[in-house]
Amino acid sequence: MPRHKEFDPETCLDQVMHLFWQKGYQDTSMADLVQHSGVQRYGLYETFGGKQQLFQLALNWYLNTVIAQRLAMFERNQPEPSLTEIKQFFGQFIADLDHPSSFLGCLMCNTAVEVASHDETVVSMVQQYFERLRRGFARALNRARQNGEIAENTDIPQVTEFLVGSVLGLTTYARSPAPRKDVQTYVRGILTMLERL
Amino acid sequence: MPRHKEFDPETCLDQVMHLFWQKGYQDTSMADLVQHSGVQRYGLYETFGGKQQLFQLALNWYLNTVIAQRLAMFERNQPEPSLTEIKQFFGQFIADLDHPSSFLGCLMCNTAVEVASHDETVVSMVQQYFERLRRGFARALNRARQNGEIAENTDIPQVTEFLVGSVLGLTTYARSPAPRKDVQTYVRGILTMLERL
Repeated sequence: MPRHKEFDPETCLDQVMHLFWQKGYQDTSMADLVQHSGVQRYGLYETFGGKQQLFQLALNWYLNTVIAQRLAMFERNQPEPSLTEIKQFFGQFIADLDHPSSFLGCLMCNTAVEVASHDETVVSMVQQYFERLRRGFARALNRARQNGEIAENTDIPQVTEFLVGSVLGLTTYARSPAPRKDVQTYVRGILTMLERL
Repeated sequence: MPRHKEFDPETCLDQVMHLFWQKGYQDTSMADLVQHSGVQRYGLYETFGGKQQLFQLALNWYLNTVIAQRLAMFERNQPEPSLTEIKQFFGQFIADLDHPSSFLGCLMCNTAVEVASHDETVVSMVQQYFERLRRGFARALNRARQNGEIAENTDIPQVTEFLVGSVLGLTTYARSPAPRKDVQTYVRGILTMLERL
């Protein structure tokens, strides 16, 4: 462990995560990581290992903080998630588009595009993230069907996958240089499609 | 111009494009480009300039070949594109998922995630690509409404943006390590939504 007296592993990991989120894996150098984490190079290596290990830790940190918060509505027991939660989930993205950080997109989706295939651990983390999205949406859709909020004959596996793909679409669109109003219209289009189930 | 007697700028550009498509901008070195294009480093610099210029040329080449072919059905005059062409466009992605190259995703969408914000020329090319998609979909949707294939009160700008975002969703999902069957189900979900317009 580094002997720097203000060193806090969680703060450091949070800064490292934000750097990878902003710049991507390839464009982030150890020099960038040292500069942004406030930890000396030897401290970063000693505590977390090299860039690849730091990246895996950053992805885990992202899953346990940003994603855990975003998916909390699908993973809690009470109230049980239903169509309302799916609409809230996409509605939240529209609200977040006002924030400059919307240009970051989603670290897991960026990783799926940029480097996932380089590293088996990262491949597995991306796949687990998709599976977690899938489980949340399927749970809410099944409840919505039981509640009569969507048609009895709704193809739940297909709509589930439609929603997983739509998350990739909107986070990629949000990270692109497209005007925020266009991304917003796309998300409103997803919400309109949900009204027709 | 390099003096290499077999040198063909279009073949070279095609190889360069495929390399950037596969590896992304950041992870592609001049050494990779030299190795894959079969042109000496001095020849690449002399003919095309540096890596950034090569990347812009590769994006243009991609737009003029891959994208031009994919969007031909929306950009031709006869027959005028309608709902059938939109369904064919997405149906083609399902067919292409059988090919290992589906893991490449879309060079423009990958670029939007990875490096678009680094370079104003690239930002502008990504935006022009979105605008070209938008124009094609809007043209086909307007015709579909005139033909009575979709409801009279369809919100054309919203559905257009929904389709643009969906292209980003499916190409990102295709580039990810997700099983091809899940990507296929997502695209089938988009087609099901089109049936309800």
